[in-house]
Amino acid sequence: MTKSTKVNAAILIIGNEILSGRTQDTNTSTLALWLNSIGVKVNEVRVIPDVENIIVNTLNVLRKTNNYVFTTGGIGPTHDDITAESVSKVFGLKYEIHEEAYKILEAYYKPGEFNEGRQKMVRMPQNAELILNPTSGAPGFSVENVFCLPGVPSILKSMLGGLKNRIVGGEPILSYTISLKTVESEIANSLTKVQDQNKDVEIGSYPFFHAGKLGVSIVLRSEKQSKIDTCNSQILEFIKEKKIEVVDR
Amino acid sequence: MTKSTKVNAAILIIGNEILSGRTQDTNTSTLALWLNSIGVKVNEVRVIPDVENIIVNTLNVLRKTNNYVFTTGGIGPTHDDITAESVSKVFGLKYEIHEEAYKILEAYYKPGEFNEGRQKMVRMPQNAELILNPTSGAPGFSVENVFCLPGVPSILKSMLGGLKNRIVGGEPILSYTISLKTVESEIANSLTKVQDQNKDVEIGSYPFFHAGKLGVSIVLRSEKQSKIDTCNSQILEFIKEKKIEVVDR
Repeated sequence: MTKSTKVNAAILIIGNEILSGRTQDTNTSTLALWLNSIGVKVNEVRVIPDVENIIVNTLNVLRKTNNYVFTTGGIGPTHDDITAESVSKVFGLKYEIHEEAYKILEAYYKPGEFNEGRQKMVRMPQNAELILNPTSGAPGFSVENVFCLPGVPSILKSMLGGLKNRIVGGEPILSYTISLKTVESEIANSLTKVQDQNKDVEIGSYPFFHAGKLGVSIVLRSEKQSKIDTCNSQILEFIKEKKIEVVDR
Repeated sequence: MTKSTKVNAAILIIGNEILSGRTQDTNTSTLALWLNSIGVKVNEVRVIPDVENIIVNTLNVLRKTNNYVFTTGGIGPTHDDITAESVSKVFGLKYEIHEEAYKILEAYYKPGEFNEGRQKMVRMPQNAELILNPTSGAPGFSVENVFCLPGVPSILKSMLGGLKNRIVGGEPILSYTISLKTVESEIANSLTKVQDQNKDVEIGSYPFFHAGKLGVSIVLRSEKQSKIDTCNSQILEFIKEKKIEVVDR
């Protein structure tokens, strides 16, 4: 895969607690920002319940339509943690004790503490590659292009560093934001013209209401800085004409 | 639809800003908690980009596999707001000026302020039903079982009250949380037994690290309080044996 290829990923959030609204997912944003920084664009995110056939069917769609799939959740020790067993079924692999993971957790816990509950966390698809966990010991794992991470945000974050060299990204996706003291309807037509003239730049328009300030952030995204710069000049031109101020956000 | 029927929904978050990680979605949690309270269970959530054919194809899947679909985002005045036009294509309806919405916004804005940009916000699928917006005027809309809401969280929240009588839910899904001073591996086996004996209660186990406290919250979900109570008694029984304390979370 050369550096100029576009590389994309799907994020699969596994967990009833997100679907019930009890827990606010923050892993999507963490993963998406990190993936962008290494040149991987997130195509889609799905949130699904802790139900085996749904996990299996969804993974079988996403792994074929994306270069990478990142799952979060369901790799702990309790009955509702069924991601590892489900991934085994996806790839037709045995779900068994992973020797390297077993050694890691045996060394991590005090003697006698590596109990039956914890031993569930070293059961994985046969020959899975481990993703090390510097926070709480229990590793994640990957099989082919599917990478399985835990649901606890602080633990997930701490595992990304060790994963970086296993993901081959394309050109990093650059982003530039310009915030304006205006409302969207004032700039909608001009912005449409800029988008029409720069079809390969992703231009987003987001109203904000923040600390008493009201405005619009325009986000320009592309792999090429020069294309972002062209768009930005065209925006600066039309806001000068309209006497619209640039503001900090 | 009788009250005992299970009613489910999908949430479709439309927006590049969520996929890029720039914006943290909070609408999923808002919608899910509200839907649960009126007896609608969220089956799945998808986040997709502002791309017409993806919106159309995804809606065509979700509207057929769920009783309701709620979309967020893409109904503002700028070029990247394409939800209304996409929904028109989904249902084969004209995308045109909605007279009632036009009157609402004409009255909402000062004379002369209802400009071309803003007029885009009253273009909708023909004969769409409006969802009133007490915060910023511009209404959402529904066609059949698809309900389209804005992406700005405070505006979305303010629109749910007016929507309540248009959604026919089943039994409200009841939830009870018991938090324990323990780690998941200590209770995993006992909890599996409780789940096996109470297959129609959804039992979730979630470790927490909060304000110096470490523990596990067990969440019991069912339409029947008596089933939740039975599970809870069984949990209280095994934690008594194991000398595990109940804690506030």
